Amino acid sequence: MKYISSTQNKLIKEVLLLRDKSRQRRKTGLFVSEGHRELELLLKGGYKVHTLFAAKGIANIEAMEDLISRSEQKPEIIEVSEEVYKKMAYRETTEGIIAMVHSKTHDLDSIRFSDKNPLILIAEAPEKPGNIGALLRTADAANLDAVIIANPKTDLYNPNIIRSGVGCLFTTQVATASTTEILEWLEQHGINVYCAALTASVNYHTVDYCAPSAIVVGTEATGLTDEWLQASTQNIIIPMQGEIDSMNVSVSAAIIIFEAKRQRNFE
Amino acid sequence: MKYISSTQNKLIKEVLLLRDKSRQRRKTGLFVSEGHRELELLLKGGYKVHTLFAAKGIANIEAMEDLISRSEQKPEIIEVSEEVYKKMAYRETTEGIIAMVHSKTHDLDSIRFSDKNPLILIAEAPEKPGNIGALLRTADAANLDAVIIANPKTDLYNPNIIRSGVGCLFTTQVATASTTEILEWLEQHGINVYCAALTASVNYHTVDYCAPSAIVVGTEATGLTDEWLQASTQNIIIPMQGEIDSMNVSVSAAIIIFEAKRQRNFE
Repeated sequence: MKYISSTQNKLIKEVLLLRDKSRQRRKTGLFVSEGHRELELLLKGGYKVHTLFAAKGIANIEAMEDLISRSEQKPEIIEVSEEVYKKMAYRETTEGIIAMVHSKTHDLDSIRFSDKNPLILIAEAPEKPGNIGALLRTADAANLDAVIIANPKTDLYNPNIIRSGVGCLFTTQVATASTTEILEWLEQHGINVYCAALTASVNYHTVDYCAPSAIVVGTEATGLTDEWLQASTQNIIIPMQGEIDSMNVSVSAAIIIFEAKRQRNFE
Repeated sequence: MKYISSTQNKLIKEVLLLRDKSRQRRKTGLFVSEGHRELELLLKGGYKVHTLFAAKGIANIEAMEDLISRSEQKPEIIEVSEEVYKKMAYRETTEGIIAMVHSKTHDLDSIRFSDKNPLILIAEAPEKPGNIGALLRTADAANLDAVIIANPKTDLYNPNIIRSGVGCLFTTQVATASTTEILEWLEQHGINVYCAALTASVNYHTVDYCAPSAIVVGTEATGLTDEWLQASTQNIIIPMQGEIDSMNVSVSAAIIIFEAKRQRNFE
């Protein structure tokens, strides 16, 4: 097994660039993921691993080899010193495992529906990577057909998205596109559009989500743009009865998604 | 107006201690809150302000005076240099406003119900202050009658709770107590107990929350302790259909709370 103990190693420097620079990720089509569960989920999600790094004395290499053997891939495992690992690690507790992985394409055309009655979540220009991660986690729990990010402010392989999504980025179909492109795509597929609005006359729980539906959420600060609000099948609101006007976007989305799931009997 | 430009000032040092040390907060019965909205909400919530600090050149002192004039309080406003403010500030964007405030008591006996059919949220030993803040935000939006923290791991005036709760700590009745005390209190008040369990046979949406109800959530990692699960009226589960076993605790709580609100027609 190859061993790297120098933080100046070219491959290690490449990992740091991929971790920190969206531009580098876009240029190379590679990204970095940390942790055992994340590795398990990305293999399960059909991602192709380029190289695996295992921290000496920290990583359970046998468990890694076992994981890989269950996939059809044979990526190289390189052992690295603890110093090199600490330099590479974005998080503190990732079991000494870092993977350099090939990106997938995330265009709308790559979305496949497993049934004729999809339920999807769309988030317009979410401000924080952590919010995207939280949305992906809810999308996984609800087994949504897809999550679409409209006019994204960051690429999907931002380490904060991967981290806060606890690997759900790899288990859910995710696409990014402009609002205009998504609206066209929704129309082509006959999907109803329910926009969560900061002001709307229809309460979210009075709407029927049993037909093909997209639930659309905007930012906490300003909500959705007019392009969404005007193109929607119905704008909906979660009644707010407190002193504060805004809920966390991942909480709002979850409330509406699970109301849709309830109406569909979780089927 | 008094002016402080030394970071060595005794009062400034006291603010730092209150911000950083739970023990100091308990000893003095004081805590620190930052920001204009937080000041507005704590005045509205009946909190008594000890001293206000306004950063020179940053704080809008007129707006602060206007806020105070609408309350019955006349706390002293002390102007501080930008350097002193930066030393005191826990956050970056809090409009140059820092308040030293008297704590409230948060025992169960202080909870008052405005109607005979309360809906409350109980969280057992939440791990992260940020999760408590998120729960308080949802509690505010749903206008819950109270939030109770069982076996708290931190005091309620932890700056991360105040910050992540965007001031909802001040707008919601909040109590802390041991699980045993809370169970007794719930029984005395005839409140049904619905425990969100990681494994349970009853789906959350099949339960009737229209009678007095407490929704109880545990930690993301281990869920609720047996003391809760065995004393509950009914253990409930949110069906999870993805690859990951756990949802964020504030998301889970919100899904169940808003199902209860839906059943109650948001009345």
